Amino acid sequence: MEEASTLDNPVGTEKRQRGGRRLRGCHTAPARQPDYRNLRNTFASQPVFSADQVGAIHDTALRILEDLGLKVLLPQARDIFRAAGCLVDDDTMMVRIGRDSVAAALSSAPKSIVARAGIRERDIVLEHGALAFVAGCGCPNVTDLDRGRRTGTLADFEELTRLVQHFDVLHMHGPHVEPQDVDLRFRHYATLRAQLTLSDKLPFIFARGTPQVEDSFEMMRIARGLGEDEFRAGVHCYAIINTNSPRLLDIPMAQGIIDFAKAGQLTVITPFCLAGAMAPITVAGALVLQHAEALAGITLAQLTRPGAPVVYGSFSSNVDMKSGAPAFGTPEHAKATLGAGQLARYLGLPWRAGGGSAANIADAQAANETQFALWGAVLAGATMLVHSAGWLEGGLSLSYEKLITDIEVLQMMAELFSATPGDADAIAFEAIREIQPGGHFFAAEHTMARYRTAFYEPFVADWSNFGNWTAAGGKDATRRANAVWKGVLERDGAPAWAAELGPALDEFIERRKAEGGASPVS
Amino acid sequence: MEEASTLDNPVGTEKRQRGGRRLRGCHTAPARQPDYRNLRNTFASQPVFSADQVGAIHDTALRILEDLGLKVLLPQARDIFRAAGCLVDDDTMMVRIGRDSVAAALSSAPKSIVARAGIRERDIVLEHGALAFVAGCGCPNVTDLDRGRRTGTLADFEELTRLVQHFDVLHMHGPHVEPQDVDLRFRHYATLRAQLTLSDKLPFIFARGTPQVEDSFEMMRIARGLGEDEFRAGVHCYAIINTNSPRLLDIPMAQGIIDFAKAGQLTVITPFCLAGAMAPITVAGALVLQHAEALAGITLAQLTRPGAPVVYGSFSSNVDMKSGAPAFGTPEHAKATLGAGQLARYLGLPWRAGGGSAANIADAQAANETQFALWGAVLAGATMLVHSAGWLEGGLSLSYEKLITDIEVLQMMAELFSATPGDADAIAFEAIREIQPGGHFFAAEHTMARYRTAFYEPFVADWSNFGNWTAAGGKDATRRANAVWKGVLERDGAPAWAAELGPALDEFIERRKAEGGASPVS
Repeated sequence: MEEASTLDNPVGTEKRQRGGRRLRGCHTAPARQPDYRNLRNTFASQPVFSADQVGAIHDTALRILEDLGLKVLLPQARDIFRAAGCLVDDDTMMVRIGRDSVAAALSSAPKSIVARAGIRERDIVLEHGALAFVAGCGCPNVTDLDRGRRTGTLADFEELTRLVQHFDVLHMHGPHVEPQDVDLRFRHYATLRAQLTLSDKLPFIFARGTPQVEDSFEMMRIARGLGEDEFRAGVHCYAIINTNSPRLLDIPMAQGIIDFAKAGQLTVITPFCLAGAMAPITVAGALVLQHAEALAGITLAQLTRPGAPVVYGSFSSNVDMKSGAPAFGTPEHAKATLGAGQLARYLGLPWRAGGGSAANIADAQAANETQFALWGAVLAGATMLVHSAGWLEGGLSLSYEKLITDIEVLQMMAELFSATPGDADAIAFEAIREIQPGGHFFAAEHTMARYRTAFYEPFVADWSNFGNWTAAGGKDATRRANAVWKGVLERDGAPAWAAELGPALDEFIERRKAEGGASPVS
Repeated sequence: MEEASTLDNPVGTEKRQRGGRRLRGCHTAPARQPDYRNLRNTFASQPVFSADQVGAIHDTALRILEDLGLKVLLPQARDIFRAAGCLVDDDTMMVRIGRDSVAAALSSAPKSIVARAGIRERDIVLEHGALAFVAGCGCPNVTDLDRGRRTGTLADFEELTRLVQHFDVLHMHGPHVEPQDVDLRFRHYATLRAQLTLSDKLPFIFARGTPQVEDSFEMMRIARGLGEDEFRAGVHCYAIINTNSPRLLDIPMAQGIIDFAKAGQLTVITPFCLAGAMAPITVAGALVLQHAEALAGITLAQLTRPGAPVVYGSFSSNVDMKSGAPAFGTPEHAKATLGAGQLARYLGLPWRAGGGSAANIADAQAANETQFALWGAVLAGATMLVHSAGWLEGGLSLSYEKLITDIEVLQMMAELFSATPGDADAIAFEAIREIQPGGHFFAAEHTMARYRTAFYEPFVADWSNFGNWTAAGGKDATRRANAVWKGVLERDGAPAWAAELGPALDEFIERRKAEGGASPVS
């Protein structure tokens, strides 16, 4: 009867209190040990375009490459295109790519890529059906409740590297924050050293010109104990290549595609197409441009070295047409991601989507936009989702607390991918027979055998009642997340073998620093 | 080149500022007029069980009804079951329902229901493929930033009725808050009067015994100008029926099913099955129990009046096994909703899912749990989603601000359901040809023709940059939502014709009050 007065809610029933008491002190069942590595996305991909429309978008992208072309600033890249029969005008730097070249590239690009981490348990398979999460990337600033919003430093980069290492649901590193206290000539040493000594996950390398990239590859070889040929035979690190939409490939990006392809390392070729700004205002139009630019980059990689590991990249969202400000986690962003998934499946290539939020702090808007973009990527069948946690201000800052609350959502999503038992044991007829009408299942044998493993156990969400929550300080999720990241940084050490890499890397780094380091190329 | 240093993010580029300036003052294109009424869910439903498992869950539910039975407290309901050949024991009040009775009920229950609102534009079709959102229901408390958390009053009920009326994406009313300042004998007059005079949407009536229900039906007839037969011929209001899991149907709930069925009004028959507490700990087990109880209620409705409008109700989530506290928006909640969708499609009936959050305030946890449950319901193909906005503490309070931030997400979801043009105009080859490499599309003709209608325009999300946002007071989403609901209450009047219903309703209400009103039945 108690339910009748408060719809759908058995208000603070004795049942739950009784059950709670009953279970306390009874911990014989095995504890929960979820595995969030190497996720397989169990959701069927959802389309926004018809098959004909997907074909038309692909064909129009080929027409753009063939008839309009792309401006390629790097002479070496133009030479590679020219050697393959593309039409190149060195005065205008325009390159027109025939559909035969694109078709050849699509047939040599691998459909499944194994990326090797520091230990085999962290290796990642990038292919349709797999899903890897990457926290927010590229942020010049960081923010947290204790220290406020500030320019990113190496100390922040190291802390974020340790936090990413801690949570299995983040599958690879990214350039989460730009450590602006380190000279650009030396920054790549510091960021890769941090990833290699604090973590065993796949590291990220910035494509800022050959000198820095070659330095980074050498550090990878030192850390993994590999010769040049062994290194080239496997994927050990990756870069994200952003074209400058519309239709422009700049020098470091083109150089990065070439250098990574030659070394057999992975590039994620991602046009950044904001509909209404650097791309047409329609979702289909933004995707046509994205598709053309991604195909151009993929073609450059395959012309450089057939079979080079490349990921098709999508990051199309929209802007606020009143102010021109970029927006993320919008309906149009999700639609563009769903459409990009159709295009990626059309190509058969592994592909990356982008998440994020344009909110200025870790509030409900930030949570809502980030989760909305996450679902767009999951339902689009993305292989890799970048900016899936912590990204604020459209990437101008990374929030430590939002990183934590978003990781909770990523874990919830990973749980959704796990099988839902539907056998006779799960259907539980005998348990239902055992419990009389109006009773409860807390003490049922069926419950006791499963109560430690049945449900996801949150690490941020607080399900205590209002009285207890208030008595415990009335901390909101952001405040609780603050305690979580501080706890991880306080307790977690780096993997011992990774920490031991320091001296060997430092020997190389010190020598290179003495030689002046390596300036970024622009 | 500017992109290279900040991955995926063209930091505060001149492009966007330029574009922003260019568009200001140019407002010739038609404004955006989204239609959020009568949504059709365009996502394919996602399964968690195999077809065999769905069949096994259904069969086990039939076996529970046939072999174990259900405790039915209302003698009249037992008589109805007995008359149909069910096995009834009046001493134990146990009713065992044969699968033939259930099959007959499932064949007479309508697959599509038209619910009539105050105006035809607000009518709702409940059938597979349709989706109606209902804000959080059944809350004893409300909370907002100005007035804090407090016991619900009629003034709150009226405010919430006006807020629900304002937003098209909320399709029907619910008992959003319990007005505890109104005597229970008179409360049903006040709540229905508020819905009928402040709104033109489908009203909710509590099933708290025949006297209150008959009063409410009479108020409906007065408001809609209908005779008894006309009233009975269409659906004009609805009730939610919660069984008392496990396997118990109490007096007001059973009476509600009978009274509403006789009057041709809609009942949403919703077991509230918390896995691990009032239901087995497994998702499949909780759904078996839910399914059995829902089928019992549906059978009672159909035995009372074949063809009576009923909605299959699902609200299965889990509890925290450490404390017994209920949880919402969890992975298990979403899985149960996805499984319930499979069962509802197996039956072919319209069905209701439940959303919500167990958070204590409108924080990131609250946003994340509510949106997670929303996606579960959308991907499950729910016809109706209750508690989709504002619900905190597992229903112990409704937050005005969270109501607003959740409505934004519902609108974003509604936008996702709209078609994504993929024709030649949308693909925009000519626009791409027009814009040179490295240029922007702000001033393109293709953009100018669409810029006022292309994108969802948020009413809570703030996409301004950190500097502007800080200068404007640094308000988080909850603070901005506070201004939104206050603005609506300040500006919005009730529909004039609805407001005019007051005197006729009051004549009836005053007479009934003088007669002592109607106490709830328990």
